[in-house]
Amino acid sequence: MHYKLALIGFGNVARSLARLLIRKQELLKSKYDITFSFTGISTGSHGFAVNPNGLDIEQALELAENGKDISSLSTFQVQDSLAVIQHSQADFMFENSPVDYETGQPAIDHVRAALNAGMHVSTANKGTVVHAYQELTELAKSKNKRFMFESTVLGGTPVFSTFREAMPLAELISFKGIINATTNLILSRMEEGESFDDAVKYCQGMGIAETDPSGDVDGWDASIKVAALATVLMDTPLKPQQVERTGIREITSEMIAKAKADDKRYKLVASAEWAGKVIKARVAPELVEPSSPLYGMMGSSTGLTFRTDVLPDYSITVSEREGMKGGPVETAYGLFSDFVNVVK
Amino acid sequence: MHYKLALIGFGNVARSLARLLIRKQELLKSKYDITFSFTGISTGSHGFAVNPNGLDIEQALELAENGKDISSLSTFQVQDSLAVIQHSQADFMFENSPVDYETGQPAIDHVRAALNAGMHVSTANKGTVVHAYQELTELAKSKNKRFMFESTVLGGTPVFSTFREAMPLAELISFKGIINATTNLILSRMEEGESFDDAVKYCQGMGIAETDPSGDVDGWDASIKVAALATVLMDTPLKPQQVERTGIREITSEMIAKAKADDKRYKLVASAEWAGKVIKARVAPELVEPSSPLYGMMGSSTGLTFRTDVLPDYSITVSEREGMKGGPVETAYGLFSDFVNVVK
Repeated sequence: MHYKLALIGFGNVARSLARLLIRKQELLKSKYDITFSFTGISTGSHGFAVNPNGLDIEQALELAENGKDISSLSTFQVQDSLAVIQHSQADFMFENSPVDYETGQPAIDHVRAALNAGMHVSTANKGTVVHAYQELTELAKSKNKRFMFESTVLGGTPVFSTFREAMPLAELISFKGIINATTNLILSRMEEGESFDDAVKYCQGMGIAETDPSGDVDGWDASIKVAALATVLMDTPLKPQQVERTGIREITSEMIAKAKADDKRYKLVASAEWAGKVIKARVAPELVEPSSPLYGMMGSSTGLTFRTDVLPDYSITVSEREGMKGGPVETAYGLFSDFVNVVK
Repeated sequence: MHYKLALIGFGNVARSLARLLIRKQELLKSKYDITFSFTGISTGSHGFAVNPNGLDIEQALELAENGKDISSLSTFQVQDSLAVIQHSQADFMFENSPVDYETGQPAIDHVRAALNAGMHVSTANKGTVVHAYQELTELAKSKNKRFMFESTVLGGTPVFSTFREAMPLAELISFKGIINATTNLILSRMEEGESFDDAVKYCQGMGIAETDPSGDVDGWDASIKVAALATVLMDTPLKPQQVERTGIREITSEMIAKAKADDKRYKLVASAEWAGKVIKARVAPELVEPSSPLYGMMGSSTGLTFRTDVLPDYSITVSEREGMKGGPVETAYGLFSDFVNVVK
């Protein structure tokens, strides 16, 4: 079986995905008899390319990484992402345009167009899940296609697929954890004596915090992830605005030093739980003790503990290691695993 | 679709499984249109019962829990587990006979018979995996059936299914963790000042250590689990005897007190990694520091960290909580999830 792929968004994540697909090409063929080609690419500022017979992906990667326009590879004149989707004749679309927390656009329109054109979709864009999960899932079902989003939370580490495939009919009672790597790294560096401003600058230098760091430090990113998790795993729509939210701006170096002296640590804790028939969701700094599973999560590590009706508390933790940090490569694996899970 | 079920072994785990199936009966029907009945039960010392039209499971549970023989429920005269399998006409067999570390018998014969009779199989018996994984998997494939064993490691918490379903084409480089709850509880209690002998007695009183505790304290149980994990997830047969093994008998109260004073802890650490073309596997006590993900795992908590080619270090931890400890109920969920994953 041959799959034609469209990449909407061609930043770090999408390019890592292309490289991962190329690296795993032989395994896909030998294990599942699957081959693929790239038939549409849409970039943020380096043009658009479509060729239903297959684009030269190595050349596209090279052009984009050297800041050059990719339009020269195209056999069509296309001017926007929707036209790329339309003309690519793809079977599977990867959506990686920038997140808009308020509306989820234009990603939602991209996903809609791809599903309507008979493509499966995988996205790393949290906006699509919190603003249109139900609509897009139903649209996909009506077309006998799949809408997938593994990489929206904890990078590409399996969370949604674990519940979907490995914990059937488990009832999720609550979850709690650290789901924003940037703030966790800031708090870790402050514990080593760095000021808040310097820690933010360090994260900006690494490329994991934006020029305006408020999405992370004010708890918005964590809130949108809590909303996505609750919406899908607790089967109840929850908007980021419904998450009670406190960021880390008020955690001073003095508070951190005092906590350390008491063998404790501040963590930006995200949680949701059933309170009667509504979900109570929260993002706020908490003092955690050494006995907490959150205590040992330092730097850009993230993790979640799930309470269900069938198992003792079940935790997933992702910790950076030499040669493999979180970020684009990890997120790319989430998109890749969505692809394999759909087509295998 | 209606499934006839055979229970070979009817101890705590199998009875918890029966209760879980009954509890989730309506959800199985509404979500997957699946119904079931129990057509064969084999107990260790309370007889055998077969009725292809369905046994009264509530009555069987009550008899077994009151130490009474279940043979009165049978419409056949059967004298052993193989006869139960033969006459049950079941579609799915759950194997929960006691583990024999050396040979894996008689569980392997039970699984073989069930597969040959056209049943799917799920087992909590580690012996079948380390002694016959390849044979039983191939036999199942040739019959278009499945051989499943989620609950052999970390109770019923998803490990094998996570790799199978949620981490497709990930290459496992190494794993490391705490996979024997009993020794972890012993070490935790010794840290609180209890002697080794008293801690062992406590575990025996709870029913999680045997009268002869050597399977746990000498590292055999952990070694067999390492062998099962490596055999399946690293796709390379590994026998428990090939695991370098040291138990916890030589860890004295003095050593534990000294470690505590240094902010460290002894843990019985199980690990396996590729060393060239062979797997180096080990079970041994290690001193761990607060920064280790193992440090916070106390009491009967267990967990594993997996290193792959596609993600940062990925850890799964299971921690007891009020009202939900590890043990039979958790293991039963592993068998249940195997069933749902096969039949859904």
